[in-house]
Amino acid sequence: MSDLKSKFLEVYTSLKSELLNDPAFEFTDDSRQWVDRMLDYNVPGGKLNRGLSVIDSYKLLKEGKELTDDEIFLACALGWCIEWLQAYFLVLDDIMDNSQTRRGQPCWYKLPKIGLIAANDGVILRNHIPRILKKHFKGKPYYVDLLDLFNEVEFQTACGQMIDLITTLEGEKDLSKYSISLHHRIVQYKTAYYSFYLPVACALLMAGENLDNHTDVKNILIEMGTYFQVQDDYLDCFGAPEVIGKIGTDIEDFKCSWLVVKAMELSNDEQKKFLKENYGKADPTCVAKVKELYNALHLQGAFEEYESKSYEKLINSIEAHPSKAVQAVLKSFLAKIYKRQK
Amino acid sequence: MSDLKSKFLEVYTSLKSELLNDPAFEFTDDSRQWVDRMLDYNVPGGKLNRGLSVIDSYKLLKEGKELTDDEIFLACALGWCIEWLQAYFLVLDDIMDNSQTRRGQPCWYKLPKIGLIAANDGVILRNHIPRILKKHFKGKPYYVDLLDLFNEVEFQTACGQMIDLITTLEGEKDLSKYSISLHHRIVQYKTAYYSFYLPVACALLMAGENLDNHTDVKNILIEMGTYFQVQDDYLDCFGAPEVIGKIGTDIEDFKCSWLVVKAMELSNDEQKKFLKENYGKADPTCVAKVKELYNALHLQGAFEEYESKSYEKLINSIEAHPSKAVQAVLKSFLAKIYKRQK
Repeated sequence: MSDLKSKFLEVYTSLKSELLNDPAFEFTDDSRQWVDRMLDYNVPGGKLNRGLSVIDSYKLLKEGKELTDDEIFLACALGWCIEWLQAYFLVLDDIMDNSQTRRGQPCWYKLPKIGLIAANDGVILRNHIPRILKKHFKGKPYYVDLLDLFNEVEFQTACGQMIDLITTLEGEKDLSKYSISLHHRIVQYKTAYYSFYLPVACALLMAGENLDNHTDVKNILIEMGTYFQVQDDYLDCFGAPEVIGKIGTDIEDFKCSWLVVKAMELSNDEQKKFLKENYGKADPTCVAKVKELYNALHLQGAFEEYESKSYEKLINSIEAHPSKAVQAVLKSFLAKIYKRQK
Repeated sequence: MSDLKSKFLEVYTSLKSELLNDPAFEFTDDSRQWVDRMLDYNVPGGKLNRGLSVIDSYKLLKEGKELTDDEIFLACALGWCIEWLQAYFLVLDDIMDNSQTRRGQPCWYKLPKIGLIAANDGVILRNHIPRILKKHFKGKPYYVDLLDLFNEVEFQTACGQMIDLITTLEGEKDLSKYSISLHHRIVQYKTAYYSFYLPVACALLMAGENLDNHTDVKNILIEMGTYFQVQDDYLDCFGAPEVIGKIGTDIEDFKCSWLVVKAMELSNDEQKKFLKENYGKADPTCVAKVKELYNALHLQGAFEEYESKSYEKLINSIEAHPSKAVQAVLKSFLAKIYKRQK
């Protein structure tokens, strides 16, 4: 494990211990144990890319200047706030999507004795974020900006999730509602803000920047997030389950995936009819038929083309940015996701 | 309808319209309609006591000085933030408790096409609060205190809900875990902070007060909230469903109600055994048996005794407070709930 990652995990232990002894609530023994287990199960088990990238980004913004222990701790704490936010969304999304597994293990709400209590656990996860921020950032000149940032990004993510859920509901009647622009809107709000913009925005705030001066950075990160989600949609169908840690069910779930949008775009009338008949059915035969059509339409090739074009466009936007330090932040992000397999 | 209430409802319309046109999110037509309907169904249909009491309290703190239109609007907006918070909790609680009705109509998640999407609607409701606060309070000297206040109170409420849920789960094995101190702890966190402390704290912040100087007010309001929840527990069993707007199911649901705690306290060994055999069963015969025991133990009398003692204690604490304006706020609260039937 890298030094950075082990430092990051150390900070998790320290934040968890603070939260389990938060003076704003008198824990019972049972509830303290519950939260302890719930955090360990849901927060640190992912790839931690979002969290780690706060520290990476902050380092790059400081252009090689050695960080103090305090700065490292604070950047890690903000990284963990994003991981907490992610855990909160995932716990609730799994309930709403009736998912079975997550990160190679049963979803939290699927465990015995948990069930729908998981919805409140999601709320608890969300509420830990302002507790962490208050404990470690209250008094910093950017404290209120941090609160506003997390609030705005959470709002945007919830709105993205809403259009995703509503569209899936409506889409069941009408696949032709699925378009590239709708896909882009869902992805931008549901994923890109919190996964891409938020880590960099946290680092910028810590570095004393005013976020109003960085809408160009925001726009580039949103585009990168869109590219990331298209990969996700691709991997859901064509990735190896043992590598991505879950069995994709976008086809069964009638998801507004990049693949189905692209398939509709490339299909003739007959293929569209075929797609409408088979998309969104739990029956494995229907799923196989959809995958067959995806192959016939050469969606793997279309994806590779999308991938290289997106990369080129992103590199150009990044190199147009006036600050070399910001360029480095953005390039480091892009390098982490370009041609990823999981 | 009182002038105040109609003014308050006007402000709801105005806040809703702002939220449906929030520039932080590009609504689709479907999603704007969805939120519109979701807000109307869940936010304004309650008694609105919590929200209205922000304005009442603020008026009393201003000791008869005429409020400006701007002050009235802001106090109403804070009142609505509390109603939004309440709607968020209720939408999620109903899912977790598998409730059927709320305020005399089906629970939101029970409506056709809603289902578990309601969990995300709960999250949206929650996220509207910082949107309202940012739009109307950003720049006020107490803006960050408002954010901290809502964050802390939401955290405490979620923790209260957690111990309630865990206790009900554990309690199924062991009724003897239910004690007055556990009941008090659940109630304090789950209900009293947001229903009693939060409205007054909002009014105090608007009046320029520092909340750190008002822990005595907080403590009195928490006690009042406890008394309120004991009434709630009482009405769940002994209230008229057509008056309280729901059919109580605390006995069926194995709730840590004041009644069952008191019953355990007053029971002999035989009665305890009887209670353990019949509490927490869906079977109407068991429910009737529990109610029979409650009558045999004269719980109605015990409740009346508790009610008058609490009242006396609260009045004494209130009258010990140095500020007449604060006394007036607290007495007005108490008058609203003393001997309530719904």
